Amino acid sequence: MPLFMDVHTLGDKVTMDDVAGAHQADLATQEAYGVNYLRYWVDEANSKIFCLVDAPDADAANTVHRQAHGLVADEIWQVQEGR
Amino acid sequence: MPLFMDVHTLGDKVTMDDVAGAHQADLATQEAYGVNYLRYWVDEANSKIFCLVDAPDADAANTVHRQAHGLVADEIWQVQEGR
Repeated sequence: MPLFMDVHTLGDKVTMDDVAGAHQADLATQEAYGVNYLRYWVDEANSKIFCLVDAPDADAANTVHRQAHGLVADEIWQVQEGR
Repeated sequence: MPLFMDVHTLGDKVTMDDVAGAHQADLATQEAYGVNYLRYWVDEANSKIFCLVDAPDADAANTVHRQAHGLVADEIWQVQEGR
């Protein structure tokens, strides 16, 4: 399955707890779209979030975010993990 | 140790092999700076690289890249991994 890194740049302050709640909503939503949100990292000071996600395509990954909590990523990149 | 996600946006075409070589150079260089490059992801089509790195500070992480191969990240964000 293709792997993606998405990047959120939020205007508002974000906390780890906020993002944990959104991530739980992703996990509860993703199965119907064949998506698997794997890991995520948050820069609280700069309201920046990176999500690593397996998905059939970028649209499917974005759709899960939109359905789960409405915060679609600003960027999404199809990546391969290096060794 | 603080955790960082850095982002490289390259003008030139990049391959997984290129980045693997640069990453090996990071690994060979990092110990003197107390830095540990953990994982990285590459979008070959868009010449985009994300590196996850433990480092005492952002400067130390950037210094390893500079010494190892000269390709310093365009952005570096101090992050926490979410659960």
